Amino acid sequence: MRNKVYQQGSRPDIRVPFAEVPLTGDNAPVRLYDTSGPGSDPEVGLPPLRGPWIAERGDVAPVRGGGTPLAGTRPTQLAYARAGTITPEMEFAAIREGVDPAVVRDEIAAGRAVLPANVNHPESEPMVIGSRFLVKINANIGTSAVTSSVAEEVDKLTWATRWGADTVMDLSTGARIHETREAIVRNSAVPIGTVPLYQALEKVGGDPVKLSWEVYRDTIVEQAEQGVDYMTVHAGVLLPYVPLAADRVTGIVSRGGSIMAAWCLAHHEENFLYTNFAELCSLFARYDITFSLGDGLRPGSIADANDEAQFAELRTLGELTRVAWEHDVQVMIEGPGHVPMHKIKENVDLQQELCGGAPFYTLGPLTTDVAPAYDHITSAIGAAMIGMFGTAMLCYVTPKEHLGLPNRDDVKAGVIAYKIAAHAADLAKGHPGARAWDDALSKARFEFRWEDQFNLSVDPETARSYHDETLPASPAKTAHFCSMCGPKFCSMKISQELKEYAARGMQDKSEEFVSAGGRVYLPVSGLPGR
Amino acid sequence: MRNKVYQQGSRPDIRVPFAEVPLTGDNAPVRLYDTSGPGSDPEVGLPPLRGPWIAERGDVAPVRGGGTPLAGTRPTQLAYARAGTITPEMEFAAIREGVDPAVVRDEIAAGRAVLPANVNHPESEPMVIGSRFLVKINANIGTSAVTSSVAEEVDKLTWATRWGADTVMDLSTGARIHETREAIVRNSAVPIGTVPLYQALEKVGGDPVKLSWEVYRDTIVEQAEQGVDYMTVHAGVLLPYVPLAADRVTGIVSRGGSIMAAWCLAHHEENFLYTNFAELCSLFARYDITFSLGDGLRPGSIADANDEAQFAELRTLGELTRVAWEHDVQVMIEGPGHVPMHKIKENVDLQQELCGGAPFYTLGPLTTDVAPAYDHITSAIGAAMIGMFGTAMLCYVTPKEHLGLPNRDDVKAGVIAYKIAAHAADLAKGHPGARAWDDALSKARFEFRWEDQFNLSVDPETARSYHDETLPASPAKTAHFCSMCGPKFCSMKISQELKEYAARGMQDKSEEFVSAGGRVYLPVSGLPGR
Repeated sequence: MRNKVYQQGSRPDIRVPFAEVPLTGDNAPVRLYDTSGPGSDPEVGLPPLRGPWIAERGDVAPVRGGGTPLAGTRPTQLAYARAGTITPEMEFAAIREGVDPAVVRDEIAAGRAVLPANVNHPESEPMVIGSRFLVKINANIGTSAVTSSVAEEVDKLTWATRWGADTVMDLSTGARIHETREAIVRNSAVPIGTVPLYQALEKVGGDPVKLSWEVYRDTIVEQAEQGVDYMTVHAGVLLPYVPLAADRVTGIVSRGGSIMAAWCLAHHEENFLYTNFAELCSLFARYDITFSLGDGLRPGSIADANDEAQFAELRTLGELTRVAWEHDVQVMIEGPGHVPMHKIKENVDLQQELCGGAPFYTLGPLTTDVAPAYDHITSAIGAAMIGMFGTAMLCYVTPKEHLGLPNRDDVKAGVIAYKIAAHAADLAKGHPGARAWDDALSKARFEFRWEDQFNLSVDPETARSYHDETLPASPAKTAHFCSMCGPKFCSMKISQELKEYAARGMQDKSEEFVSAGGRVYLPVSGLPGR
Repeated sequence: MRNKVYQQGSRPDIRVPFAEVPLTGDNAPVRLYDTSGPGSDPEVGLPPLRGPWIAERGDVAPVRGGGTPLAGTRPTQLAYARAGTITPEMEFAAIREGVDPAVVRDEIAAGRAVLPANVNHPESEPMVIGSRFLVKINANIGTSAVTSSVAEEVDKLTWATRWGADTVMDLSTGARIHETREAIVRNSAVPIGTVPLYQALEKVGGDPVKLSWEVYRDTIVEQAEQGVDYMTVHAGVLLPYVPLAADRVTGIVSRGGSIMAAWCLAHHEENFLYTNFAELCSLFARYDITFSLGDGLRPGSIADANDEAQFAELRTLGELTRVAWEHDVQVMIEGPGHVPMHKIKENVDLQQELCGGAPFYTLGPLTTDVAPAYDHITSAIGAAMIGMFGTAMLCYVTPKEHLGLPNRDDVKAGVIAYKIAAHAADLAKGHPGARAWDDALSKARFEFRWEDQFNLSVDPETARSYHDETLPASPAKTAHFCSMCGPKFCSMKISQELKEYAARGMQDKSEEFVSAGGRVYLPVSGLPGR
């Protein structure tokens, strides 16, 4: 059981949601970060939480809770942060993080954090992405030419955020891209990201050679008006870099990267996203869209990790980061992919150095290629490590990676694996407050408060059902032993007695123990293991 | 599809099994390490592969393929290695590892590796555990007072080794311990480990206070005669260390550790396993049983990691390691437990320093406490990292950890998560040959050889079934596009064309491309992602 509670900010309309887990006995409830949103009728969409905040700033003409950007304005969180302003969005995000709002403002101002919040997505609950803050996770959804529907995708959105997705990317291809995206944005309390290139390609009949800056720009405006909060732009796939990928084991595995490579080669011209980057920045600034600079040349296999193609593009992304910042546009940088464990740290260090500390946003990375159907695990290993080293957001990988489109179960499996990776990284980074969750659960475990343990876990239903499989009866939920070992072996039980024992002095207790018939320790038992 | 093939050693009866994956086209087959054993009738047991080798050495009186130790002999692999002998067991293990047999001998002689092989378990296929070699994984099975039967446990053994378990521990408690173990050892081609303390406790009616050295010693002899290859001994839980665990969040979570702590406190005497350790070594030497020195004070929560209780015991295990080596007995050291990522490396470094490079054998570690039902994932993260840092064997954790007894599905999930962690560690350590598997699978993926990709994966059936869910038709298995993206988007396809393109010179190809109508790149597509 979890209760949605709200923490009040400096004004009445800053009400920050948390999932509160009530505990039994005199144990204080635990508040967890909550991404699930307010809940609403999917037909109507969510209420425009940020509407008043956007309107008050006066730099957009109010429309449908959001606004049409006024000419020449740069209503970005980066511009406000640089001007020293703490927006309601920053305060909201700071309360979620448990930090001073000035820290959020300063990290955004320095480019080390982003707060993706399109002026046309007033339904979003503000959140911040940066290495100083809790590690975030993204879930990809989207229709494809092969399968799935709009309703299914909105359902996946709600499902993903219920389990903890901090942002969602709509990677729809095929028909009904616009309609799918509209349904997703209007129903999303988390920032929505897209790869506009996919829709631009649809507009030219699927032929990358026919792509042009004009078609792309129109697509950006269309999506900007809908409220997309961040967009992946493969502006770093430069013509001279393309041959660097030719001798790879797996070539170019980024969809966007391969489209731009095809365009560059066919025209023998430089990437139009690179040559028009300044104009792109002006567009992004008007709506406060955050760049997610795509790594079109990311490695798609262990063999290709950390090669020259990958790092050449990263250097260009560093250059583009500075251009975006000149336009007051927020930036994060996308990263790999497939990387063996010993090469992970180099990725973060180089990205932080080349991109001036802009937030890193990585896909996994997968630490081995040999486990299709389990790539949520191969990549959770890499994600946890890269998070520990300073990556700000982890793009999830589902068990269906490389094999098929994720269904609901796959989305849940991916989100939970990444929630684990992100939290493990928070612990390793010593994020204040991260440990409280672990300690509360471990204390509940040690004290045989089974229901508290279930309710505190990332997936209470599954934890409870696993316990039920071995010990279904309700009294077992208050049993002072574990279901692995049964009543005769329980190390937890004896440890509790040792505690008391130590407190009272060992010799005294030893005598008391023997005189009491030596039965105190009878229900000796243990957790699994040895 | 995988074929069992054998590589011949220096004598006809050294035939080392591998799982060979035939590939399509002119791609060479890939040989994978194989733990599945020869397969046999569970009623009869496996053939005694090592029988002749044990008999030839003349230090045991042959019995049932194995032997009764002759008085005063030390028929251990460590004694032979120190004498400069390469036993057939060492050669067998070396062929599995793809290294020179002298390397196996030298690592065993130096104490940096163990080859667990009780003279009474002739059915086992020799394998070596040490940081120079492939990282190994262990699966725990066993009956409990609450549930499960002998037949079920033998089935779990076969199932676990089918998916890649390198050793199996029988942690049975409750009734029929002897019978269960007999069935397991006779049917196991992998080394079997136990915690003899559990059976000793049964013999004294479950009361730890009634335990004695005599009961324990008799239990050791009983299990030694059955052929147990390695035994967990909690000889490092010393009386003065017990109070160090009193203020922990989760006290003592090791079953064996809590039993010995209870005994020490009740008697106010030093741990009888510690005070009788030399005699224990003499017994182990007679049968060539390998010590797995248990970490009875390992942390059971993030809060308790790397504390004084844990490291005090580790120092004692270092001391005991030297005593065992004096008796020519092989030793490995058990490790945690629950450890946040930033504290993992210290565990390996300290263990290697204190224990003279003896192999480390860790349980996970879990990198967060908050995900019961997903602890195969929380711990695979820690296991991969600790493997990279030099841990030789990883004890698996199943999704049921902390909640219930693992069933078949849980055993498979645990083994596969650990197979992934171990292989990721092999890659990160640069183990020669580890990369070949990844490269073969990635090459198959890039070339759309779907069946090859499935057959090379850790779980071909699941990979194939996931692909079927999206694209069930058989022609899809030869389709030149991914099931995520459909035929119009495929980065793999375009990358293949880029390869050809680069080889022929970009300008030429660009002209050719345009003159051909610009359609070459039409099936542009991509892997999932962005």
